[in-house]
Amino acid sequence: MSLLKRRKILVTNDDGIYSLGLKLLHDAVEPLGDTIVFAPETPKSASGLGITLHKPLRIQTVEYWGMKIYVTNGTPSDIIYLALNELSPNLDLVVSGVNIGDNTSVQVILSSGTVGAAAQAALLGVPSIAFSAAVEESMEFKDPLLSEVIVRVARRISEIVLERGLPPGVDLLNVNFPRRITRETKVKIARIAPIKFLQRVNVNYDPRGNKYFWLYGMMADPIPGTDVYAVHVEGAITISPIRLDLNTRNSSEETARFLRDLVREAESTLEDTARAAPEAEEVIET
Amino acid sequence: MSLLKRRKILVTNDDGIYSLGLKLLHDAVEPLGDTIVFAPETPKSASGLGITLHKPLRIQTVEYWGMKIYVTNGTPSDIIYLALNELSPNLDLVVSGVNIGDNTSVQVILSSGTVGAAAQAALLGVPSIAFSAAVEESMEFKDPLLSEVIVRVARRISEIVLERGLPPGVDLLNVNFPRRITRETKVKIARIAPIKFLQRVNVNYDPRGNKYFWLYGMMADPIPGTDVYAVHVEGAITISPIRLDLNTRNSSEETARFLRDLVREAESTLEDTARAAPEAEEVIET
Repeated sequence: MSLLKRRKILVTNDDGIYSLGLKLLHDAVEPLGDTIVFAPETPKSASGLGITLHKPLRIQTVEYWGMKIYVTNGTPSDIIYLALNELSPNLDLVVSGVNIGDNTSVQVILSSGTVGAAAQAALLGVPSIAFSAAVEESMEFKDPLLSEVIVRVARRISEIVLERGLPPGVDLLNVNFPRRITRETKVKIARIAPIKFLQRVNVNYDPRGNKYFWLYGMMADPIPGTDVYAVHVEGAITISPIRLDLNTRNSSEETARFLRDLVREAESTLEDTARAAPEAEEVIET
Repeated sequence: MSLLKRRKILVTNDDGIYSLGLKLLHDAVEPLGDTIVFAPETPKSASGLGITLHKPLRIQTVEYWGMKIYVTNGTPSDIIYLALNELSPNLDLVVSGVNIGDNTSVQVILSSGTVGAAAQAALLGVPSIAFSAAVEESMEFKDPLLSEVIVRVARRISEIVLERGLPPGVDLLNVNFPRRITRETKVKIARIAPIKFLQRVNVNYDPRGNKYFWLYGMMADPIPGTDVYAVHVEGAITISPIRLDLNTRNSSEETARFLRDLVREAESTLEDTARAAPEAEEVIET
C-alpha cells in the first residue's frame, strides 16, 4: 500500500498527555495507519462539546510516552477543528480516550470531553469512537490484563470501523471498559441511561472560613439494560451506538397539540406586542 | 395563593451578569413566581453541559440591573446543581438565556452553555426552556420592539410550561428569536439541523511572530425546515422541542448485524488476550 493511501487516525483525549489512557489508545491504533496524537496540555474533563471562542489557541509539540504529541491550550472539541485545519484536512478515524472514568448515561456523556471530541468529529462526517474505562486514576491502566485487553479490543473495534464505516443511524460509538477484566467479562451492546448521578455538591469551608462547593458524583441505582448497569453491575465491556439527533420522535397527538398551542399563543403575543409598541413602527420602517 | 405555593423559577445564562439578555429573561418570568437569578461571573459561552470537577466553586451575590444576582466561578451546568443544593431544593422551572447569538443545530446546541444549563435541569426532571436571540452583542437587546417581544413571548411560553408541564417525549424547549422583529415575523416549530458551521479556525501571528489560532463560525447553507433556516433565512421566532436521548432509533438489519459483529469480534479478541497473557491469571486469581 502506498504511503499516500495510508489511513489518517487522530488520537485525542480529555485527560491530557500524562494519562496512560492516551498511550494505550495510541498503541491500539498505531498499526492501523498514520496516527496524529493531539491532546489538551492540561486535563479538560467535563468540558463536554465546549469549544474555545474567547481566546487564541496554541499548538505545540512535545515528546512523551515515546510519542510525538501535539498539545493545545484548548478543549478536546477544539482539537478536532485544529487538527482538520492545521494538521490533516482528511481524517479517516478519530479515537478519543481512553478516558479515566467511564462515560455512561446521557448526563455524563454530554459533559464528557472525551465523547465531546468524538461527537464533534462525527458532526463533521468523520467516523469516531470514544473509549473510556471505569478506573479512578491513570495508574490503574498499568494492570497488565486490563491494558492488554484495552489495546487489543480498541484496535479490533477501530479496525472494523475503518473497514466498514459506521452503519446507518449511528453517528459514533461509545465504548466503556470495566474496572477489572476477569474470566467472566463479557462484551455487551447497551442502551444509554438518561442519568448516572443523583447529586453532586460537597459543601466545605476554606482555611479563612469562607464557604466553597465541590461538585462530585453519587451514583443513582443503575437500571438493568443500560450502559451504567452493564459497566458497573455486570462488569462488561460495553458498546453503545450514539445517534446525535436531539429531535423528538414519533410525536404523540398530545405533544403535537402542545406545540400548536405554543405557536398560536406566541403568535398572538407577538401581534399584541407589535400593536402596543409605538416605537415599534419606527424600527419596522427603517 | 399562599407564599409557600408560589412557583420557584431559576433564571440563568452563559453570558454572565452584564448581558442584557439575563435582565430580559428575569423580566419575562418575574410575574410568574419567585425568581432566583444565578449566573456565571464571567462569560461561559460554548461551555456546553460541562461541569467543574477540578476546583472549588464559590457563590456570591451582587446587585446589577436592579436585581439580586447570585454569581459563581462555575459553568451554567454547575449552576443547576449549586442552585438545587444550596438555594432551593425544588424548582418548578429553569429558564436559561436570553443568549447573545442563536442556539440552532445539534453542533451549536451541544456546545452551548445556555442550552447546557437547561439540559442539566431537564435530566434532573425540572422543566426547562433555553432562550436565545440571533443578535451579535448585548446592546442589540436595547431595540425596543425586539426586547418587548422577547419579554412577552418568553413569558407566555414559560407560563404555558408552568401550567401544563412539557408533553411526553419532550425534555426541554429551545427557543430562538431572530435578530429583528418585523410585521412579517412568524412563530415556527422547527427541527434541529445537525450542523450550522462548516469551519472555524482563523490562523494568525502574535506580535512576537508566534502562530495562534482563533475558532469562529462560518455558516453552512441552511437546510429548509431546520431551526437554522427558520431563524436565519425566514427570520422566525423558532421553537424546537428537544429530546435528550442519544440512542439509535429503528435500527436497520444492517446496523443490527454490524453491532452483533462488533460484539463477536471484541469477545474473541478478549478471549485471545486473556489466554495469551500469563500475568493475566495472577490478576484474575487475586
